[in-house]
Amino acid sequence: MPYFDAASATPLHPVAREALLASLDEGWADPARLHREGRRARMLLDAARETAAEAVGCRPDELTFTPSGTRALHTGIAGTLDARRRTGRRLVVSSVEHSAVLHAADAHRAAGGQVTEVAVTRTGRVNDTAYARALADDTALACLQSANHEVGTRQPVTAVAEACRAAGVPLLVDAAQSLPWGPVSGAWGLLTGSAHKWGGPAGVGLLVVRKGVRFAPPAPRDEREAGRSPGFADIPGVVAAAASLRAAHAEAEAEAARLRALVDTIRERVPALVPDAEVVGDPERRLPHLVTFSCLYADGESLLHGLDRVGFSVSSGSSCTSSSLTPSHVLRAMGVLSEGNVRVSLPPGTSAAEVERFLTVLPGAVRSVREQLGAPADGASDRVHDRDPGASETAGAGAAGRAGVDGAVDAPAERVETPGETREGSGPAHPRGTDEASQVSQASPATQGTYTVDALGTLCPVPVIELAKVIDSVPVGAVVTVLADDEAARLDIPAWCSMRGHDYLGADGSAYRLRRR
Amino acid sequence: MPYFDAASATPLHPVAREALLASLDEGWADPARLHREGRRARMLLDAARETAAEAVGCRPDELTFTPSGTRALHTGIAGTLDARRRTGRRLVVSSVEHSAVLHAADAHRAAGGQVTEVAVTRTGRVNDTAYARALADDTALACLQSANHEVGTRQPVTAVAEACRAAGVPLLVDAAQSLPWGPVSGAWGLLTGSAHKWGGPAGVGLLVVRKGVRFAPPAPRDEREAGRSPGFADIPGVVAAAASLRAAHAEAEAEAARLRALVDTIRERVPALVPDAEVVGDPERRLPHLVTFSCLYADGESLLHGLDRVGFSVSSGSSCTSSSLTPSHVLRAMGVLSEGNVRVSLPPGTSAAEVERFLTVLPGAVRSVREQLGAPADGASDRVHDRDPGASETAGAGAAGRAGVDGAVDAPAERVETPGETREGSGPAHPRGTDEASQVSQASPATQGTYTVDALGTLCPVPVIELAKVIDSVPVGAVVTVLADDEAARLDIPAWCSMRGHDYLGADGSAYRLRRR
Repeated sequence: MPYFDAASATPLHPVAREALLASLDEGWADPARLHREGRRARMLLDAARETAAEAVGCRPDELTFTPSGTRALHTGIAGTLDARRRTGRRLVVSSVEHSAVLHAADAHRAAGGQVTEVAVTRTGRVNDTAYARALADDTALACLQSANHEVGTRQPVTAVAEACRAAGVPLLVDAAQSLPWGPVSGAWGLLTGSAHKWGGPAGVGLLVVRKGVRFAPPAPRDEREAGRSPGFADIPGVVAAAASLRAAHAEAEAEAARLRALVDTIRERVPALVPDAEVVGDPERRLPHLVTFSCLYADGESLLHGLDRVGFSVSSGSSCTSSSLTPSHVLRAMGVLSEGNVRVSLPPGTSAAEVERFLTVLPGAVRSVREQLGAPADGASDRVHDRDPGASETAGAGAAGRAGVDGAVDAPAERVETPGETREGSGPAHPRGTDEASQVSQASPATQGTYTVDALGTLCPVPVIELAKVIDSVPVGAVVTVLADDEAARLDIPAWCSMRGHDYLGADGSAYRLRRR
Repeated sequence: MPYFDAASATPLHPVAREALLASLDEGWADPARLHREGRRARMLLDAARETAAEAVGCRPDELTFTPSGTRALHTGIAGTLDARRRTGRRLVVSSVEHSAVLHAADAHRAAGGQVTEVAVTRTGRVNDTAYARALADDTALACLQSANHEVGTRQPVTAVAEACRAAGVPLLVDAAQSLPWGPVSGAWGLLTGSAHKWGGPAGVGLLVVRKGVRFAPPAPRDEREAGRSPGFADIPGVVAAAASLRAAHAEAEAEAARLRALVDTIRERVPALVPDAEVVGDPERRLPHLVTFSCLYADGESLLHGLDRVGFSVSSGSSCTSSSLTPSHVLRAMGVLSEGNVRVSLPPGTSAAEVERFLTVLPGAVRSVREQLGAPADGASDRVHDRDPGASETAGAGAAGRAGVDGAVDAPAERVETPGETREGSGPAHPRGTDEASQVSQASPATQGTYTVDALGTLCPVPVIELAKVIDSVPVGAVVTVLADDEAARLDIPAWCSMRGHDYLGADGSAYRLRRR
């Protein structure tokens, strides 16, 4: 049963398991105690720290074990902001950082601090010159991930670290996603990682604070881990984490090359196999094992479940898979489609055969979800590969024909209703959509060329599906207004326009305007 | 090799080990994910939460797993103080709480809050009426441990919880030490625990917030564990923790009775076996497995090492075993002797033979440390059992003889030097004592009856040793001033006076005054 969600967590590396079992008998005591058991625990902890420090490329006394990567980030950010508060209270982050960083930024803002978010390109990459410009006199700390957790894009850490060094600002690198593949080079000041991303156990993160970086451990104070991580450490976990980091690095080069080739295959073949799919993220400067794509007219949760049923575990940045009902902030910051989003992240050891099988089942899984949602027929989907107007019109007739079941979509004065939410078993993911229906209507004969699709109360991907169903019944050049109050529409309607070649004109509240091409 | 430091950490319970191993393969994935592996992890997490909640006596949705008991305390305290800040900013704690509570109180004070510390008796027990009086209109939160971690005294939680309920103040119970023995009854509002105290793995704490208690999870926010514990949970650890808590409770009654009898043996026999030793803590209302005693003229670190060499692992609240150079705040709050402090806490399964062997080797270990420190001869030590003045004078002559080697201690105008720090292998524990020497001198003939022992620059237990060496050369009724700048002197000199029957007159900075009896 292939597990393709390594970016969330990887199964225990055999070395981690071995180290964990080996240290259960020796590593349970308090390393701060002077007795035999305490000294043994201390020795294990010290050895683990040395191993981890060597793998990360720092001094052992610069490295603190924390209970998670999230806690490492929270502590690293709070401790540096506090120590440097006389310099200023500005925190600079990229707009695609992990939520742990952005939530720490929210907390800083709530406490009266300032936050600058540096934008990214459509591939999710920070521009290092833009980042350098964001460093102001009052900047206490800058944060940049080494690689993005959702789309795999590597960030220009070395260049940004150099700009930070020049500006006298410490750079904190969230290395959670790249650390399994090797150390992070460059003049960074702080670095964080998370063991369960590299095959270590959960419950172990690491925080590196390089000598010379001013740092004030957040209160309440505690004597453990140089005051930087309160509470009794899980030493068997820490030992397993350190051992598996070393093991992962030893295997990284060969495994990265192998997985990179598999990911290349997915990147190339998904757009050919799945109509209206878009691969997102930087095609070259990226993690070796991770690829993300989005599928028009599909919802992430149904896709996840569909792939799960045929044996593949993936994740998704679509809004419909999270409790917040907002699509991934990463996809939003990149300005790319969020609907039908699938992240594939291959754990070490993934075989070519597993990837082949994934590519075999994927098209059917997407098709099935689209059918359940009443998405445009295959003809409409084909247009992404053949955008000449003739083909488009033919396909459009099919779509219009479906949308016009209940009325005449080409009679603009009439109200045309289309099914709003027809997906079976949608459950609580789209609660607002259940009793709603989208509509396309023309406001009045005087505003000939202005059409409205009412998708209020429906959730991703329904607004875009409704729009796609009726677009071909709208005259070329006419303006369509889509009424949609789902957060994802803000991302998906412009992305749809861009993918399908229509002109996106902008939004006013819940009203999105576009011109048919 | 008997390990008698269960109050610090216990070895893994067999059930914990089994549960840990069984869940390594199923519990590594992200429980927030929708795929197969995520659902399995979620099921394990939910089942562990139900098991732990049943053992604690709460609803599963009231229980949060945290990375440690310390973090549970920090979060529980900060979250309640914040949510109830409109009521007031007063935190009430006992003076013998765990340092994690007192450090949280420090942080609260630093942030502008008020803290009331409720004193304890000489047995380390809070008076519930006194605690109730400390609850004011502006009290946001009250904290009380269920039992003390250093001396084992159980606190009147039920009565204090009732007083808190009447005052409308939530009570947070730090149950770290008692939870291995059963749930905590009473109308508490919050409760914390730590798995490695009951045979679970390190890295797992728990925080219970009962329904109806206002609670605001501290920033930065995070979606895991109801927002109360950021970061990816160690599910195998959590599963092992829950399973072993249930197992510990199943065995608690029988094991508590057995260990209580062994502790009774230690409590009875130590004062008879070791001269000048004092057992501290409540003799009845106490944890079943824990006993603490202090030995005059000995230092905790040397005692620890001495016991360690003969195979026993214990801990100590003496200042010389910690980096802070101050004695345990618990012993300080109780007003009892801190020097030569030994805490014995028996893990489940400790045999009567092990305890017998401990009692056999203890007297020699203490004697050896005292000899290394140049403590008063055996005769002096005997006085604790025979305090009639005649015996005292005899013994005193011996002590004075030793102290008077370099001069005439009975010639008050002369300066008498005694060896300050003669202990071998003292290492860095007593750095200031190395080149120093204590002195007893009489200021001038005009102030006949006033003697000075200069122990400045020496560390615990040297000031008391120097005092004991010369006390018999001082006329009965005369006032002795001890100059000592070690923190522990503040506790040990009054305690010594009380143990030896002299009148402690008070301190002025580093000058302690007492009258010989």
